[in-house]
Amino acid sequence: MLRIGIDLGGTNLRGAAFDDQSLARPSEPPDKASEVARWSHKEAVGADRDPAAIVERVAAIADRLASDSSGPIPIGVGIAAMLRDRRGTVANSPHLGWRDVPFGALLARRLGSRFQLGVYNDVNAITWGESVAGAARGCRDVLAVFVGTGIGGGVIAGGQLVEGATNCAGEIGHVKVRWDDQAEPCACGGRGCVEAYVGGSYLERRIARELAGRKKHLAVQLAGRIEDVMPGHVDQAAANGDEWALGLWSELAPLLAIALGNAVTLLNSERLVLGGGVLSRTPTLCQLTETAMMVVTPVPLLEPLEIVMAELGDTAGLVGAAALARSGVSLISTAE
Amino acid sequence: MLRIGIDLGGTNLRGAAFDDQSLARPSEPPDKASEVARWSHKEAVGADRDPAAIVERVAAIADRLASDSSGPIPIGVGIAAMLRDRRGTVANSPHLGWRDVPFGALLARRLGSRFQLGVYNDVNAITWGESVAGAARGCRDVLAVFVGTGIGGGVIAGGQLVEGATNCAGEIGHVKVRWDDQAEPCACGGRGCVEAYVGGSYLERRIARELAGRKKHLAVQLAGRIEDVMPGHVDQAAANGDEWALGLWSELAPLLAIALGNAVTLLNSERLVLGGGVLSRTPTLCQLTETAMMVVTPVPLLEPLEIVMAELGDTAGLVGAAALARSGVSLISTAE
Repeated sequence: MLRIGIDLGGTNLRGAAFDDQSLARPSEPPDKASEVARWSHKEAVGADRDPAAIVERVAAIADRLASDSSGPIPIGVGIAAMLRDRRGTVANSPHLGWRDVPFGALLARRLGSRFQLGVYNDVNAITWGESVAGAARGCRDVLAVFVGTGIGGGVIAGGQLVEGATNCAGEIGHVKVRWDDQAEPCACGGRGCVEAYVGGSYLERRIARELAGRKKHLAVQLAGRIEDVMPGHVDQAAANGDEWALGLWSELAPLLAIALGNAVTLLNSERLVLGGGVLSRTPTLCQLTETAMMVVTPVPLLEPLEIVMAELGDTAGLVGAAALARSGVSLISTAE
Repeated sequence: MLRIGIDLGGTNLRGAAFDDQSLARPSEPPDKASEVARWSHKEAVGADRDPAAIVERVAAIADRLASDSSGPIPIGVGIAAMLRDRRGTVANSPHLGWRDVPFGALLARRLGSRFQLGVYNDVNAITWGESVAGAARGCRDVLAVFVGTGIGGGVIAGGQLVEGATNCAGEIGHVKVRWDDQAEPCACGGRGCVEAYVGGSYLERRIARELAGRKKHLAVQLAGRIEDVMPGHVDQAAANGDEWALGLWSELAPLLAIALGNAVTLLNSERLVLGGGVLSRTPTLCQLTETAMMVVTPVPLLEPLEIVMAELGDTAGLVGAAALARSGVSLISTAE
């Protein structure tokens, strides 16, 4: 059965169509997008982010990917937004510059009854994708945490995606790890969120601040220029025993570990999937975080837990959104 | 359809039988046990806690409550224990003095095919009970936290009880709220668990320590003797503006609020149910905790959240265990 996954992010709009053959062999990890998707498409979101224009473009991709298949065709859209309900209403998307946009309703109306539409938070779709065909294949209790520019998470409990009362579950980036007077402010309006310490954009600013004027520092040499130093370079420096880099990682790893360990304590997950632009390039930070988790997580909750890196990369969100829609999770009525 | 709930705690062994009429009116809160259960039973656990003896006694209660009903009769047992799996294997129960006891398998064998047995963590059963007939009626996303001697929790997500990989989900008492050198040790072996600050047994020791020699203190006057001062007396003193009591509550409320707020941030619950021997008698602490939660929880996760007190008291575990078994959650094969 054909199904379509769409990933609407701040930079790219991507789509892929899957058929039964493409995921027929769940025991074989689909390492590349080409092994999973039968057809795929990618374009830049571009400057015109008017909801009506984006809806039209998503629908055009859907029509193209659906080709001459007969409906109803499941289509799942993962969107980089905080949702407000299970009908795809965007409460807020800094990436798209949207606030209070009834995206799901608009898209459902445009797509019509040929499609069965579900709209999901992008990280939830990615989490589901990793559970369908990636690092958490076959797992019923999963916590996935992605550290990129910000920090997002997804939870699967008893084989079901945890969406929460208003489709906002998994916001582990805004779990508080400091609450004293010095707690860092976060873009969410709160203070002391783990994202404000370990999230890529905060981390990069801190790295730039602390390395200012230190042209001979190992991380700067690795990057070439101070302004190009990324968390990955700091990780390499830490792996090489650099004191500053190790100090920074030793401060941040316990904070991330507290957020992760406390979540596992609550959820009793069997698999913790780590990914995202920062963690995928910082193996030393991951290792230190894992070590700190051993200390802060009760043993009965550590024993069943396996910690792994995400496998599917950019494909995960497409796989997951399509699979969620196909499973009938939070479908939006396309009837007028 | 007849169903049986059993609550096996450290002090009492209780049982109740429910029929369809007893929960037929979900809109009417069953304020008293007598309004819910058709038949009920209570006995002291007593000194002989040998698993075989307990199994026999539970089975005898089941036989009596089942009367002449024809099988298969759902029977749910909530047990004050950390479980290891969904077959009722007790990893550890300080209350019963058990370690590695295949309680579910033993009881299933004794009960035979006339019964359909499920064994659940007692707090999970209580949480489910509150969602079936108590403070979280009709809610699909629930976090329930009970502060008594210790702190236990239960999670419902998308209408399903979150059991976790090894049936240990909801251990919010062992979420870390301190991780510096001064973090309090907890009986679990960890340090800085919220239970080690707000859990009743820790709290009572601290109260006794800080009030030692202060016979004229308001809390002591309320209780009569220093050794009788309970958290409820401290709460009354705080409500009356006592400086020490307010200071203690102002230290503890944010710690509890961090654990609760971070859990809600992850789960996007629509209802937070608070209960247990401490919180049911400390309205001022509850109020301060709620206020602190407003600060530490992101607004989009606060908006859909309602915070309420548990309604069913001792009955919740019986209602919940029976309802879980009836719904077929984690039934244990009774075949030989």
